[in-house]
Amino acid sequence: MGAVMRAVLPGWMQSRLEDRLPKWIDAAWWKDEAELIDLAPGAQIGWFDMHIKPPALNALSKARDLEWLNSAYAGVDWMPLADLKARDIKLTCGSGLAAGQVAEFAVMSMVAFARGYREFVRAGDRREWLKRPPASREVAGSRALILGYGSIGQAAARMLRAFDVECVPVRSTAGEAVLGPDEWRGRLGEFDWIVLTLPATPETIGMIGAAEIAAMKSNAVVVNFGRAEVLNQPMLVEALENEAIGGAILDLTTPEPLPSDHRLWSLENVRITMHLCGVPNKSSRARAAQRFLDNCERFRTGQQLEGQVDLDRGY
Amino acid sequence: MGAVMRAVLPGWMQSRLEDRLPKWIDAAWWKDEAELIDLAPGAQIGWFDMHIKPPALNALSKARDLEWLNSAYAGVDWMPLADLKARDIKLTCGSGLAAGQVAEFAVMSMVAFARGYREFVRAGDRREWLKRPPASREVAGSRALILGYGSIGQAAARMLRAFDVECVPVRSTAGEAVLGPDEWRGRLGEFDWIVLTLPATPETIGMIGAAEIAAMKSNAVVVNFGRAEVLNQPMLVEALENEAIGGAILDLTTPEPLPSDHRLWSLENVRITMHLCGVPNKSSRARAAQRFLDNCERFRTGQQLEGQVDLDRGY
Repeated sequence: MGAVMRAVLPGWMQSRLEDRLPKWIDAAWWKDEAELIDLAPGAQIGWFDMHIKPPALNALSKARDLEWLNSAYAGVDWMPLADLKARDIKLTCGSGLAAGQVAEFAVMSMVAFARGYREFVRAGDRREWLKRPPASREVAGSRALILGYGSIGQAAARMLRAFDVECVPVRSTAGEAVLGPDEWRGRLGEFDWIVLTLPATPETIGMIGAAEIAAMKSNAVVVNFGRAEVLNQPMLVEALENEAIGGAILDLTTPEPLPSDHRLWSLENVRITMHLCGVPNKSSRARAAQRFLDNCERFRTGQQLEGQVDLDRGY
Repeated sequence: MGAVMRAVLPGWMQSRLEDRLPKWIDAAWWKDEAELIDLAPGAQIGWFDMHIKPPALNALSKARDLEWLNSAYAGVDWMPLADLKARDIKLTCGSGLAAGQVAEFAVMSMVAFARGYREFVRAGDRREWLKRPPASREVAGSRALILGYGSIGQAAARMLRAFDVECVPVRSTAGEAVLGPDEWRGRLGEFDWIVLTLPATPETIGMIGAAEIAAMKSNAVVVNFGRAEVLNQPMLVEALENEAIGGAILDLTTPEPLPSDHRLWSLENVRITMHLCGVPNKSSRARAAQRFLDNCERFRTGQQLEGQVDLDRGY
């Protein structure tokens, strides 16, 4: 056993971690921004997640001894990745921890859209017995392009296939039954659902723009549970206003929160779920704690860490 | 080839059937109640489905030469089964034709309940960006008792399993990994979801009553996509008002339509979908036409018909 290392960890993880940490970790727990800034300079291992990002970034800039930074967030596009690389800091993220939680919500939202579930809610609030179905789509027999085939995309495809939806995945490297980055644009017109579960990287930002939207079927529904920046939102709004496509299901918008006078709220073919489908809950926090503990052992023995981010690719 | 048989069939099926019927069928098409009553006495094969049942039953009583009665409805509890048996008439129903359509709606409703989707709809209508998730359940890891394991129950279980819901089916005859009719009551307290996809028969009417509801977990949700009569609705309402159980998702109610002043509308833990999840659509009508054509051949050659009802059991 080598030297003891100092870990600066969030207070909301203390009850889940403190009795289970290995002996070579000397843990300090921060409960607010002031404590985090105070403790950061001594950290060799850090977990600085805050809902508001500037204090976390400030702590990171002060943590000059940092060797490993952990986060429970799946997306790390808010972090200074080039700086972390220059400082030779390993970064682990929460990729996959909320995948099932996000995928079940995304798939439910798609079936709800197809079957007009919103109208059942509205009619129930009016105490009105609807006489005919508000929508006549079934999801069975429809086809989905899954752009982004990481843990969320794979879980969503598994669920959609149980509903007899044909799923065609796309990822950055082509493979068996998986389209590569140059193959999907020519086939956009074949799909009823365009499901986005992509991270925001230089390659993906603005990836779905005017040309891609124009290539979609007139009743195609865009489903975004990845990052808002992947979609050219003004172009999407225009297509939705013109009913050039069938609809959009958006967990993410630009900006967030969306102001109450934004045009997106007024479109009948849009569903907005306020970036809430993957918010940490009891189950995902338990998974985050377990992954951190597993990674302590891997870090100590020099293995690849679970959820480790490729600092060049950004995910 | 034997004698030509007279079939009296619904006008709304004419375009799907007339060019595809075998030559030994002499078809007549009815478009309204008067035509149906007029044509019924000559029918050897009949398809008398009407949304309002008394005229269909009147036609049936006049069809003294009937040998085979077809219906696209899954439930046949509105028919005089003993009379059909005495008259030696074969009955085929639409069992299974809408199974996927009903199951996808039922499963979507369950995930929507767990994730508080109704609150997203309501907030969107207020143009309000919710700050935290309205519900913290995930369906992953929950357990469902599936009471009624015909085509709907089996399809629902397949979909739920893709969401990592553990499903335990119950049917009238026990089998491998299937509970029999005497085994499930003692295990009611183990389940988060009690999913009912049962027909209404003497054995199932009132099957879920005060004792069964009392045995459920305090957060169990009753999900009924079978027949309203299977549930003791006054007992269910009482349990929901006392929050003795977690909620109810009801496609069926007593009566239908539910009057606007009924207590069920006022309960926050209830979702009502107005008996609309299995209404015939383009896909299910095409399936009904195909099954009828397949059954013509089976009927002619004396084989068991697809969807044939056991007139003693009632399904």
